[in-house]
Amino acid sequence: MPKTTPGPRDERGVLAARILVAARKAFADAGYAGTTMRAVGRAAEVDPALVYHYFGSKEALLDAATEPPQRWLESVAATWATPVPQLGEALVRRMLSAWGDDEIGPVLRAILQTAAHEAATREKLRLVVERSLIGVSQLGADEAERMVRSGLISSQIMGLAMMRYVWLIEPIASMSDDALVAAVAPTLQRYISDDLG
Amino acid sequence: MPKTTPGPRDERGVLAARILVAARKAFADAGYAGTTMRAVGRAAEVDPALVYHYFGSKEALLDAATEPPQRWLESVAATWATPVPQLGEALVRRMLSAWGDDEIGPVLRAILQTAAHEAATREKLRLVVERSLIGVSQLGADEAERMVRSGLISSQIMGLAMMRYVWLIEPIASMSDDALVAAVAPTLQRYISDDLG
Repeated sequence: MPKTTPGPRDERGVLAARILVAARKAFADAGYAGTTMRAVGRAAEVDPALVYHYFGSKEALLDAATEPPQRWLESVAATWATPVPQLGEALVRRMLSAWGDDEIGPVLRAILQTAAHEAATREKLRLVVERSLIGVSQLGADEAERMVRSGLISSQIMGLAMMRYVWLIEPIASMSDDALVAAVAPTLQRYISDDLG
Repeated sequence: MPKTTPGPRDERGVLAARILVAARKAFADAGYAGTTMRAVGRAAEVDPALVYHYFGSKEALLDAATEPPQRWLESVAATWATPVPQLGEALVRRMLSAWGDDEIGPVLRAILQTAAHEAATREKLRLVVERSLIGVSQLGADEAERMVRSGLISSQIMGLAMMRYVWLIEPIASMSDDALVAAVAPTLQRYISDDLG
């Protein structure tokens, strides 16, 4: 979020949003070390000084560019309220719809593409997974079991997301949503309520 | 592999190996754009000129640093010959043992940590997944079914690897090998031979 108000409120919001779109792409493509505030300004077609003015530092820009949208965190929390017999399918569909969303998809992509090599984003990814996939669930008889079940669910969802949206590995990248749901929902259902040995 | 022989054969091999170890760490930590041949030379405690002399270019160095060990490709191919009822467990154990291997683990880590933002490594990851997980399998009645089954197996194995070894997300990062095998092998077994809807 911008820290100051150098212009009319609307213009500030529009320019900040444009800078964040360019920053997500730059961080994802070139990594944190390979990205400069100047290049982000050029890609966003704004004066690079404005990038500093709005976001203060490259670290703060990365932080803003990879901030999970509140709307998405709320929708994930709501998904966890799905009755247990439909929860596996609901979680797969929530993931597919998030990546298809114009606002949420690019943020998730930026988080996953920088998390492999940026400690700060890895920490954020850990928080996102803990809050959205592990922390919110009510699975299991105790805390340890709940963590294991949610961790396994996360491993399948995140692997699917990396193959389909980040690494673009076929045939996962092109399968229909319905085919993926039919194939993967039972896996999640097993992690949700079966005996895991 | 080094292209020329500037010193005794043993010394060349030792120095090239030391450069590759430093390069894997640099590419994984700082990304391709954030890595310089000079910094790799410094980290490997060799003259940066030697890095150019052995590997020619940064692109060639990345290529050499992320080349999957032949020994690992062969062990994965052998794993696919496991009888179907034990194949799920064999695939999970193969993944766990590869990441625990002093030679193979760092290469897999370098591939996954650079694949998110480097097109060249992403292409190599695609080849690795296709050759080691998708291409070698004999699952399914036809090519399309074989690809879907192997793709789903890959999605679970790669998600588990990212959580356990790259993103270090608990409790997956610290679970025992046996607990993971008990939890995940039945998922792979389902992708191997169950009706996937």
